[in-house]
Amino acid sequence: MKFGSSLCTLNVGGRRFSLTAELMKHLPLSRLSRLHRCVSESELLELCDDYDRDRNEFFFDRHSEAFSFIMLYVQHGKLRFVPHMCELSFYNEMLYWGLESSDLQPCCQRRLDSRMSDCFVHFFPEEEPQVQEKPQSRWVERMRRTFEEPTSSLAAQILASVSVVFVVISMVMLCASTLPDWKATETLDQHRIIEAVCIGWFTAECVIRFLVSHNKCEFVCRPLNIIDLLAITPYYISVTVTILTGENSQLQRAGVTLRVLRMMRIFWVIKLARHFLGLQTLGLTLRRCYREMVMLLVFICVAMAIFSALAQLLEHGLDLEAGNQDYASIPAACWWVIISMTTVGYGDMYPVTVAGRVLGALCVVSGIVLLALPITFIYHSFVQCYHELKVRSARLTRSLSAEFVS
Amino acid sequence: MKFGSSLCTLNVGGRRFSLTAELMKHLPLSRLSRLHRCVSESELLELCDDYDRDRNEFFFDRHSEAFSFIMLYVQHGKLRFVPHMCELSFYNEMLYWGLESSDLQPCCQRRLDSRMSDCFVHFFPEEEPQVQEKPQSRWVERMRRTFEEPTSSLAAQILASVSVVFVVISMVMLCASTLPDWKATETLDQHRIIEAVCIGWFTAECVIRFLVSHNKCEFVCRPLNIIDLLAITPYYISVTVTILTGENSQLQRAGVTLRVLRMMRIFWVIKLARHFLGLQTLGLTLRRCYREMVMLLVFICVAMAIFSALAQLLEHGLDLEAGNQDYASIPAACWWVIISMTTVGYGDMYPVTVAGRVLGALCVVSGIVLLALPITFIYHSFVQCYHELKVRSARLTRSLSAEFVS
Amino acid sequence: MKFGSSLCTLNVGGRRFSLTAELMKHLPLSRLSRLHRCVSESELLELCDDYDRDRNEFFFDRHSEAFSFIMLYVQHGKLRFVPHMCELSFYNEMLYWGLESSDLQPCCQRRLDSRMSDCFVHFFPEEEPQVQEKPQSRWVERMRRTFEEPTSSLAAQILASVSVVFVVISMVMLCASTLPDWKATETLDQHRIIEAVCIGWFTAECVIRFLVSHNKCEFVCRPLNIIDLLAITPYYISVTVTILTGENSQLQRAGVTLRVLRMMRIFWVIKLARHFLGLQTLGLTLRRCYREMVMLLVFICVAMAIFSALAQLLEHGLDLEAGNQDYASIPAACWWVIISMTTVGYGDMYPVTVAGRVLGALCVVSGIVLLALPITFIYHSFVQCYHELKVRSARLTRSLSAEFVS
Amino acid sequence: MKFGSSLCTLNVGGRRFSLTAELMKHLPLSRLSRLHRCVSESELLELCDDYDRDRNEFFFDRHSEAFSFIMLYVQHGKLRFVPHMCELSFYNEMLYWGLESSDLQPCCQRRLDSRMSDCFVHFFPEEEPQVQEKPQSRWVERMRRTFEEPTSSLAAQILASVSVVFVVISMVMLCASTLPDWKATETLDQHRIIEAVCIGWFTAECVIRFLVSHNKCEFVCRPLNIIDLLAITPYYISVTVTILTGENSQLQRAGVTLRVLRMMRIFWVIKLARHFLGLQTLGLTLRRCYREMVMLLVFICVAMAIFSALAQLLEHGLDLEAGNQDYASIPAACWWVIISMTTVGYGDMYPVTVAGRVLGALCVVSGIVLLALPITFIYHSFVQCYHELKVRSARLTRSLSAEFVS
Repeated sequence: MKFGSSLCTLNVGGRRFSLTAELMKHLPLSRLSRLHRCVSESELLELCDDYDRDRNEFFFDRHSEAFSFIMLYVQHGKLRFVPHMCELSFYNEMLYWGLESSDLQPCCQRRLDSRMSDCFVHFFPEEEPQVQEKPQSRWVERMRRTFEEPTSSLAAQILASVSVVFVVISMVMLCASTLPDWKATETLDQHRIIEAVCIGWFTAECVIRFLVSHNKCEFVCRPLNIIDLLAITPYYISVTVTILTGENSQLQRAGVTLRVLRMMRIFWVIKLARHFLGLQTLGLTLRRCYREMVMLLVFICVAMAIFSALAQLLEHGLDLEAGNQDYASIPAACWWVIISMTTVGYGDMYPVTVAGRVLGALCVVSGIVLLALPITFIYHSFVQCYHELKVRSARLTRSLSAEFVS
Repeated sequence: MKFGSSLCTLNVGGRRFSLTAELMKHLPLSRLSRLHRCVSESELLELCDDYDRDRNEFFFDRHSEAFSFIMLYVQHGKLRFVPHMCELSFYNEMLYWGLESSDLQPCCQRRLDSRMSDCFVHFFPEEEPQVQEKPQSRWVERMRRTFEEPTSSLAAQILASVSVVFVVISMVMLCASTLPDWKATETLDQHRIIEAVCIGWFTAECVIRFLVSHNKCEFVCRPLNIIDLLAITPYYISVTVTILTGENSQLQRAGVTLRVLRMMRIFWVIKLARHFLGLQTLGLTLRRCYREMVMLLVFICVAMAIFSALAQLLEHGLDLEAGNQDYASIPAACWWVIISMTTVGYGDMYPVTVAGRVLGALCVVSGIVLLALPITFIYHSFVQCYHELKVRSARLTRSLSAEFVS
Repeated sequence: MKFGSSLCTLNVGGRRFSLTAELMKHLPLSRLSRLHRCVSESELLELCDDYDRDRNEFFFDRHSEAFSFIMLYVQHGKLRFVPHMCELSFYNEMLYWGLESSDLQPCCQRRLDSRMSDCFVHFFPEEEPQVQEKPQSRWVERMRRTFEEPTSSLAAQILASVSVVFVVISMVMLCASTLPDWKATETLDQHRIIEAVCIGWFTAECVIRFLVSHNKCEFVCRPLNIIDLLAITPYYISVTVTILTGENSQLQRAGVTLRVLRMMRIFWVIKLARHFLGLQTLGLTLRRCYREMVMLLVFICVAMAIFSALAQLLEHGLDLEAGNQDYASIPAACWWVIISMTTVGYGDMYPVTVAGRVLGALCVVSGIVLLALPITFIYHSFVQCYHELKVRSARLTRSLSAEFVS
Repeated sequence: MKFGSSLCTLNVGGRRFSLTAELMKHLPLSRLSRLHRCVSESELLELCDDYDRDRNEFFFDRHSEAFSFIMLYVQHGKLRFVPHMCELSFYNEMLYWGLESSDLQPCCQRRLDSRMSDCFVHFFPEEEPQVQEKPQSRWVERMRRTFEEPTSSLAAQILASVSVVFVVISMVMLCASTLPDWKATETLDQHRIIEAVCIGWFTAECVIRFLVSHNKCEFVCRPLNIIDLLAITPYYISVTVTILTGENSQLQRAGVTLRVLRMMRIFWVIKLARHFLGLQTLGLTLRRCYREMVMLLVFICVAMAIFSALAQLLEHGLDLEAGNQDYASIPAACWWVIISMTTVGYGDMYPVTVAGRVLGALCVVSGIVLLALPITFIYHSFVQCYHELKVRSARLTRSLSAEFVS
């Protein structure tokens, strides 16, 4: 391999570029500098598509316009996108020639980021249904789909509807049981039967879904399933306790622990997330926006610390005896700060001194500004998640229906 | 028709593409593969615009750049939009060659969706006035327009104004009638006369609009007309009852049923929707966004279930005697949750325990986030509906004025 | 002028288009059909730039690509923007050839509208300073600028600052005068002197600005000046009354009318609009968004009518004796509705029945949605107005500074 | 140098443009007119890249398309962006030829502004680490980074975490110290020790950071450091006072001044800004948006002035005896206005007259509109700041890690 001082020719997609070997070595394109370091022709052919020894010409089957644009960058030092080219295609060319996204001008780099975040979102769902399934488990697989994907078949839809109905019934029961006129003993047995049926259904659903799942371990770790478990077990614990300690369930209900266990059924309502796109979107958004959630939390905590300390000082601390006793301690003032910053304003506490009121106005206005700032990010993410889940669900329905038809 | 192993030439808009027949058969462009299956020349000419048997050349009068881009897709497997071309035009080309929108890369697919939703909106109103009208019903048609389209003529505008005035009068009457100092008997007769005139006008308007409508059945099903009917009939029912049971109208008014019937007149206010673009936009938005409305409802219900159960537990359930009696039952706590989540905060109920206040803060912040998420979709839709209705109304006005002029 | 059946050639910007005379007559481009109707060459040269009788060729010094695009429209019936061309330039070409914006596809039409609204905004301020001024009024003009344009010179800035200081002083005086511990008589005389000085300054400013204004009539009609007048005159009225009825000003102050007159000084605060870009932007936004303001008002009124009537019925009407007396009449319920819809929630009224609370929840949620919808338009307009006023103010400053320098 | 009446040829990037010398002199491109004024060839070569005396041809190694576009501007008077070119590149060409951004059409000018504001933001962080450092101060530099840049190394991260823990501990201590059951004397000594440790840590951190800082003066002026100082000194002051006046610290704590000094520790919470991107973003946003902040403040003040004066008049002023005593003075009404405009609505004050309620409704609605308007700008700025700081922090991490690796 002799480069000498002779000219090299790069033939990119039919267009020729002549460079001195010296220049080529110093170009910031790693593919070209590696070309220069090659010692054998076979090594060289790993880097370019063809080599013509006579004319010292290297062939590359790549987009010529993109390359000429990249060469311009080499001379002027500012790499920007080729105007008419898809940003992602150009990025592919850049990677081929050995540039990274950080070599782009900052504004183009940002454009690339936003394009990639738009697109990765859509690339991701396609890979999921690639699970290799054994032919004998066809029946299990169909069962699994019936339970896991409510849109996959008519049976799945009926099952989903029944499940929703049971959730609603058990929620209504739970709410009603706290009403004062509900605690008459005569209807108590009926309620216990309805409760038992609901629990029975949820238990059965849970067990079947566990049995037909692909991956038992991953199934147990899924948040929705953990919630299911947490919502079901308390019932069995309380039944066990009742059996052990005797039939006096009325007394049981009076126990604080059992009331807490009972209230955990409320988390069944999250089961609805399986059946409503909106709730799934919400879940996905929350998982994606955990950074923004933390930011929101930090904002609230910092603002709460500052404003509550100042409010306590101004309303109570300056005059311990005559001061507003509502603001006696910082934690009490915290409650006022959060209720004011969110513009709820129950009116159970409010400043009465002039300084306290000025602080209050400041607190409210900064609350409006502060809370809204991280939420804008969450909105943006929510819109994206919604579109993504709609596309994914449409695909799932289509591919499944195609399968059942063929 | 012999393809053999010879080369075919596709002449698209003057640009030639040479393909082996084998390749052509396997291309994912259904038009080309169907071309291959043709047995007679006449069949072939249904698929292409011309055929030159000597050179085995197929002519297509289509956009050549779009086709060459589509051919690139065939080789690289990633179909994106041609940079300078209108997305809709390119989609037309795709459909011609036998591709679907799902063959596009996801990011381009989304761009197409958004373009189409932008445009269909505008295509739709053009088709409406295509109703074939009989020449003899010209007068009826003009009458119909006068009543249905407030911007169509001067008479229509006057009619609309009178109608608005009557609505406002009857609304003021209804409001005033509930004031304590209004119930003096001396002015009662005057009010009854004004009421009767208003009702008479609305009835007349309704009847005429029904008589001159194109399609009686569709007229009856329109939501605005149903509301009209619901707002008018109660008056006649109460008059009938009064006549049947005697003239003691004062006593009548004391009856709960009649008060309910009377209050239904409030729905006349929705008649204003005929005359205000904003209200029409709102109606259209609500109809289009029913999915987002359901999402909003589901979000509120789920959040209400979880937070109210927890609030009841923390504020009341943990200590039944000393606990906050405002939170005695879950339905009562629901009221607190919705009033807090929407940041209204009347102050009739508020948590007093530390745990309850932490939950309250959480509830308020998640309420701000939750409620705003589906509303962003509704905003977007509202803006679109508004532009659409403005364009439609401008067109209607223009086309009608053109008609009256010529 | 003979067209006959021979071919015409249109030479647009160097590119030739051949058409039969028949086709040309029927094209929807009014310039070409008017060309056909010409009887003399001079008439013809008003429509095209040159004419070559031998070759029957018409010359147009226009953009050839735009024309070829428009010709495509003629054949396919769908006119869209040329991809790389500025929308406004293309629109110019369209107007030249006799097309209107309504000939564009709806999506392009909307794009054009938004571009034009973006740009007209900026074109507008350039025309303003074209006022022809007499050389002798140079001094008056400089005086006018000093008073009207706070950024035009150092003197103007000082004047503006003094004016702001006086407004602030008079506002503080007005506020302080309502404080209970302020009404001591010993400081009363000082206050009256300060008051008199402020009024004197405002009067002087007003008079000078009136004297140096270009157009007295237009000056009187400007909203800011009307407000000035309304804020100043009450003082003189009260002084007159005091003089006429004797010096007992303490007694004067007790009179309702004089208190009202006194309070009108609050409108001086609007004078600040002269000195703050933000307030000017607000004013401009309100003037531009009057449609959206009306929409907001109509939304609020309609929602208030419906919800207050229903709330009165549910909370009070169903049970006149035991019902919630807060909701005794619809106007009273209106107050609750507006305070709930805007999520203020003072807590002076709130529903207590279950039906009333469900209605309340509905009212609050629909209030959040309803109020926000028209406000999005106002936001958009505000952002635009702000940019516009910033650009205009920057230009004014630049052009004036250039003038003073040269 | 003879131009005479002969033609000049401009060769821009290989494309030739022929102009008469006369025309060239009058073109609004300052480079060309300066060319005309040159007297020697050397002077000329400062303006163009080469000159061919024989053909009177000037060579410019610039973008030819941009120049031809600029020439078009000369003839038509409307300069717009070349469609496919990056706005910033085109602006470079414009500057080269002697045009300014104000020569662009207003819409393009605005596009350029927004592009530049996007990009300058990203250019700025690159220049910062260009500080020339002495070789011997390598250790100091590493120390500095450890303290100032929490992401720069493992040690820095540990230090940052410890610092956050200390802040949280001291915040919890401060909050707890205001609780009533905390004031038992037996634990008081422990608290004083924890306090002393926290203060010690903060003092040490502060001192080290000061010692290793590049520029002592700039260090002292940084807002975060001023806050540190303000938060630390009060402790030493109170210790000094305690020592001077004796050990009766219980009595000290009762003193108002010491309570105020103590409460200043709350500002330590702002130290967290060093460790949370969100808080830094917030700080940067506030600094950038000071104009919008002022606008928000002005809006609130003006609205408060007008509404509070009117509310005082309507609720109290019209009937001094029977009127609502809550609204006795304008400053009192101000509190109601701000609490209503921000939709907080504590309910401690509310209007009771009809006129006052109408004003209240108006005040609330205009508050929603007014407050939101400047906030939209702040949102926009916040999003931009966030992206910027994320990019900067990613770069810092990358470049530092690269340094430690090599």
